[in-house]
Amino acid sequence: MIKTAVIGAAGYTGIELVRYLLGHPAFELKCATTNSNAGQLIADVYPTFIGQTDLVFTDHDIEKVKAECSVVFLAVPHTAAMALVPELLAAGITVIDLSADFRLKDPLVYEQWYGIAHSAPDLLEQAIYGLPEMSRAALLRAASEQAEKGKPALVACPGCYPTATALALLPALQAGFVKPGSTVVVNAISGVSGAGRSPSTKNLFCTANENINAYAVASHRHTPEIEQTISQLAACAMPISFTPHLAPLQRGLLSTVSVELMSGIDSEVLYDCYRQDYATEPFTHYLGRGMPQTASVVGGNNAQVGVTHDVRTNRLIASCAIDNLGKGAATQAIQCANIIFGLDEKTGLDSIQPIL
Amino acid sequence: MIKTAVIGAAGYTGIELVRYLLGHPAFELKCATTNSNAGQLIADVYPTFIGQTDLVFTDHDIEKVKAECSVVFLAVPHTAAMALVPELLAAGITVIDLSADFRLKDPLVYEQWYGIAHSAPDLLEQAIYGLPEMSRAALLRAASEQAEKGKPALVACPGCYPTATALALLPALQAGFVKPGSTVVVNAISGVSGAGRSPSTKNLFCTANENINAYAVASHRHTPEIEQTISQLAACAMPISFTPHLAPLQRGLLSTVSVELMSGIDSEVLYDCYRQDYATEPFTHYLGRGMPQTASVVGGNNAQVGVTHDVRTNRLIASCAIDNLGKGAATQAIQCANIIFGLDEKTGLDSIQPIL
Amino acid sequence: MIKTAVIGAAGYTGIELVRYLLGHPAFELKCATTNSNAGQLIADVYPTFIGQTDLVFTDHDIEKVKAECSVVFLAVPHTAAMALVPELLAAGITVIDLSADFRLKDPLVYEQWYGIAHSAPDLLEQAIYGLPEMSRAALLRAASEQAEKGKPALVACPGCYPTATALALLPALQAGFVKPGSTVVVNAISGVSGAGRSPSTKNLFCTANENINAYAVASHRHTPEIEQTISQLAACAMPISFTPHLAPLQRGLLSTVSVELMSGIDSEVLYDCYRQDYATEPFTHYLGRGMPQTASVVGGNNAQVGVTHDVRTNRLIASCAIDNLGKGAATQAIQCANIIFGLDEKTGLDSIQPIL
Amino acid sequence: MIKTAVIGAAGYTGIELVRYLLGHPAFELKCATTNSNAGQLIADVYPTFIGQTDLVFTDHDIEKVKAECSVVFLAVPHTAAMALVPELLAAGITVIDLSADFRLKDPLVYEQWYGIAHSAPDLLEQAIYGLPEMSRAALLRAASEQAEKGKPALVACPGCYPTATALALLPALQAGFVKPGSTVVVNAISGVSGAGRSPSTKNLFCTANENINAYAVASHRHTPEIEQTISQLAACAMPISFTPHLAPLQRGLLSTVSVELMSGIDSEVLYDCYRQDYATEPFTHYLGRGMPQTASVVGGNNAQVGVTHDVRTNRLIASCAIDNLGKGAATQAIQCANIIFGLDEKTGLDSIQPIL
Repeated sequence: MIKTAVIGAAGYTGIELVRYLLGHPAFELKCATTNSNAGQLIADVYPTFIGQTDLVFTDHDIEKVKAECSVVFLAVPHTAAMALVPELLAAGITVIDLSADFRLKDPLVYEQWYGIAHSAPDLLEQAIYGLPEMSRAALLRAASEQAEKGKPALVACPGCYPTATALALLPALQAGFVKPGSTVVVNAISGVSGAGRSPSTKNLFCTANENINAYAVASHRHTPEIEQTISQLAACAMPISFTPHLAPLQRGLLSTVSVELMSGIDSEVLYDCYRQDYATEPFTHYLGRGMPQTASVVGGNNAQVGVTHDVRTNRLIASCAIDNLGKGAATQAIQCANIIFGLDEKTGLDSIQPIL
Repeated sequence: MIKTAVIGAAGYTGIELVRYLLGHPAFELKCATTNSNAGQLIADVYPTFIGQTDLVFTDHDIEKVKAECSVVFLAVPHTAAMALVPELLAAGITVIDLSADFRLKDPLVYEQWYGIAHSAPDLLEQAIYGLPEMSRAALLRAASEQAEKGKPALVACPGCYPTATALALLPALQAGFVKPGSTVVVNAISGVSGAGRSPSTKNLFCTANENINAYAVASHRHTPEIEQTISQLAACAMPISFTPHLAPLQRGLLSTVSVELMSGIDSEVLYDCYRQDYATEPFTHYLGRGMPQTASVVGGNNAQVGVTHDVRTNRLIASCAIDNLGKGAATQAIQCANIIFGLDEKTGLDSIQPIL
Repeated sequence: MIKTAVIGAAGYTGIELVRYLLGHPAFELKCATTNSNAGQLIADVYPTFIGQTDLVFTDHDIEKVKAECSVVFLAVPHTAAMALVPELLAAGITVIDLSADFRLKDPLVYEQWYGIAHSAPDLLEQAIYGLPEMSRAALLRAASEQAEKGKPALVACPGCYPTATALALLPALQAGFVKPGSTVVVNAISGVSGAGRSPSTKNLFCTANENINAYAVASHRHTPEIEQTISQLAACAMPISFTPHLAPLQRGLLSTVSVELMSGIDSEVLYDCYRQDYATEPFTHYLGRGMPQTASVVGGNNAQVGVTHDVRTNRLIASCAIDNLGKGAATQAIQCANIIFGLDEKTGLDSIQPIL
Repeated sequence: MIKTAVIGAAGYTGIELVRYLLGHPAFELKCATTNSNAGQLIADVYPTFIGQTDLVFTDHDIEKVKAECSVVFLAVPHTAAMALVPELLAAGITVIDLSADFRLKDPLVYEQWYGIAHSAPDLLEQAIYGLPEMSRAALLRAASEQAEKGKPALVACPGCYPTATALALLPALQAGFVKPGSTVVVNAISGVSGAGRSPSTKNLFCTANENINAYAVASHRHTPEIEQTISQLAACAMPISFTPHLAPLQRGLLSTVSVELMSGIDSEVLYDCYRQDYATEPFTHYLGRGMPQTASVVGGNNAQVGVTHDVRTNRLIASCAIDNLGKGAATQAIQCANIIFGLDEKTGLDSIQPIL
């Protein structure tokens, strides 16, 4: 068993990591740290765990983590992650970072959007973007290096919006079907758990229920990450117009993308491209022209993608549904960790979710 | 009191018309017809009306309607409306049509999207598009003609998505800020009442709750209506990429639009344009750069609009929230009827809605 | 116009009072005070009010209230109300108190359940319990005294659970159908707005949504109020077993009561008793054996009551649905104020609510 | 692997059985029959299953089931089950019946509440009530008989309301703390999935959302089952006053019970009794005086129970939360099947559920 820690275990993403790791056959959860509920039984904070585990939340004792664990999942806010990563890597510990700190390759872009200079820019290059559908080769190389040379991997897990958006467009971009340089219009909708667990007027039941709104227009920090990913897949600079929305559901995220295609694209060729690219993916499934719904992916690591070629406007409308706390956070992190440690990607992630 | 009928009164839009007309000081509801609950007390079908009215749903007795009423609200499906309108107008009755039958000016476009030839194409020209913010002058002219010459007006009330989309862009389009001919990308989200009251697997609680999905991609029938309206406001052909979504709320609709601007637009000039255009509108309010939420407009006739100039991409992101059954249907119809009958636009529509 | 203040205007109940008073033809809202948003436009705090009012929240300037207003609605927590009431009454101001401070007639019972000695016990006797279906005669007497002798009335508006529970049983209790001294088992379910607007983990969307639980079992402070009311209606001591529940709806409250009947009660006589008692009530409606649903009363002042005589167990099952912020708080307070000021009870409360 | 069929696999309970059986290490799902979607891929009907299974729904071919399977889960309506059970048992097939047909021991009571004579009354005696917390000994005996004598077991799985109600009271009843013969007042609240998947106005999103109501008052068919179970646990006749409610959640059921205690009961002794009785139960957990919430048990087979001794009225308030489709249906059926086939009770049921 691989000794494992979750740093920041009491938030929505952290506790989801805890839940999966407790049932994982290869990772053994040794430490679940938090600065809010240290000393409490997990089952006292989250009654769902009653009868399932006697584990206690502990405080952020990094020395203990370094002494006991081989891999650390960081479910902490940005800036907190980059403060910890150098020390963990130096101690030979694999880091699966769910924060935003190592996603952007250019530290100046990081500074521009996050308002603070990056404190570990030298690690940006070695950080692998943890979207297996896009970066599996890099993840496998890092796995080899770790296994053979003992060099601990650093995985920068994607944000929830960037995950769904990249999966919506990946086959079309890689095949060169999208018009180079054209603006990619991304409208995405997230459940309220994306806003975190700190109480505020915005995430109250009586505020969020029966309500829809756009937010962080033209300023959401996932914008440069989406731009980096889409541009890399397109092999050219692609500007992004990204508008996130909040909807009254607990979990689930849908990204719907409208983008101009090259002229002369045959619809069936386009659809076949998606079918083939995703045929072998363990978690990302292509629905044909059927549009995905979040309810079909909530509670697990699956992504479902549907696309329509609007021949009238020669645009591609692609929509991808994920669980913002699953494929958009905790389970994708575990998928990456599985790869890094040479396990089957589906290990610990293969249960079927309820239909409702 | 102006004698009034609602044809198709038992659906979600119809019953909302009934509710407002029962409290309206100038319209007197004489007939509420339906083919599903004829003979039943409204209060037996909808217990909200217990103690409020003794009115009974009646069947579609058009002769009775013609004999007793001066104005008819048509809350019937498309094709049913165009079958009734010629007869009603010929009888001198004002028609406020909430169906799609008289919205599109070109009968060929109608046939293309609705799959049936228009049966009253000669009336299309005289039908006034019932979006007061855009067509107030035409509505007032029709009001004069009706008052002075006795010629009954025919108002084609806009669809819910076209209403919100037009209000999101109207000031920018009329001011010439939007790049002519560029594709307008519209992503909209509607509550489940937009799917109507006929039970199906799709609108079950356990299907729609905790779920989000796009639907009718590149094929929704509001597309040509949006295209007609936006192009008219822009005074040039504007292609529309429209993707509607369904979200787990009962009422409420949000349309978020991303569109390319002319180069050199000053953000403040853009914002001022919205501020000025909407300063005198009784129901449409500009929020500045704050984004509207549906919860603030549900249950009434208000529209709230927020816009952001994304200078990075030189695009305008505009978002408009309405109640799909209110400003998107029943209350906008009453607003139009108020104008046609020379009443203050706010008559019967001035109550403040609850904050939750 | 009667000059009016709402003290504690920014909470859910306070803002609902504001909403109704702004549309009321006889009360003129002069002051809306709060200790949380003083100085802000109401429309800035609650965007629903955009375009509806220019009123600004002010701080708790009681001197100003006393100088300008004839009636004060107190939407403040318990203890805060009893600190203000003596001063307001002394200044000749009518007080409609929505707190718990003047509901219980026995100051020792108050101290027992609220954990603090009552600071104005001498006013308890003159306080009229503001449930018009039960106390209309007393309210009318107070109205006369106020009109004729200038003695300002003090109305203690009932809690939300006591309102629904009393209305569920009132006819059966007054007719002597319920077995004297038997335990009245009350199970009630409230929407989340009942928990107020202060953010906490308990009223987060992701906590309250898709969740049901009982709370404050055997310890809810509405228990002695229910016991006082039920015992008064029964003219004998009736013990109450009261269990409140929280359900994922914003507004709405349902109280379902199970109680043993006297032997030999004829079901139809029982039902007729409800029918007759409630036939003339403007807001409380009897549904026969049909069970009420909260959706039919939300957004207004109506109560709907259904009863079933379970002949198998000779028990009465009665269920009453109200809006916890309406008949359970703000609108019932206005109903009482209407009576106190000699207005028609329905003044300002007669709009029909939407069916969804 | 034990060859398994689910008859009635396309409803909410049936598909939940399918989901668990596909992941079960000892049962192999061979047939999933339905009369509504026969011939369709499960993944086409329920997109959650995309990428998880290639299984196809088949029609009700009982001969095929008899030829291929050793155990059958019946997720069919009452009357349909009793028509199949004799034939299946005669063919040597173990039957786990989730319908109501074999729950009531007295065929006359069955006829009285279900309006039809029981067609297999001779099998009622051998049917084991599938509530392991109450009937584990009987289930184990049946397991022995099946293993040793080849006599196939017939398990009558409890209804959802009876399950939660029995678990709320079991320790107190078995210990003799409840006053014999006193009326047990049960108020329960179910999510909308309890109403099934057939579309009707009642289970539409716009009907069920933001709504609460009691239903089937004094007439719900679970009443005699609750009465049978509670009376058996109390070892004397206990009348039940049962009122079910519908609440706007998809899954989850809460039963809150108020019952008179014997005089002189010490609260701590009462609480200890619950603690000890449930200490060794794999799925039923006692929370002390904390009240359970449905969100903590949804998606699995757990029950959580909280109790309060209201010393003021000397009543016990007990509340039990389960998943109506889990412990109230599908997973409890699998728990029983595990016992019958000599497996660990938790086999296939041990995953931890998400906290939201």
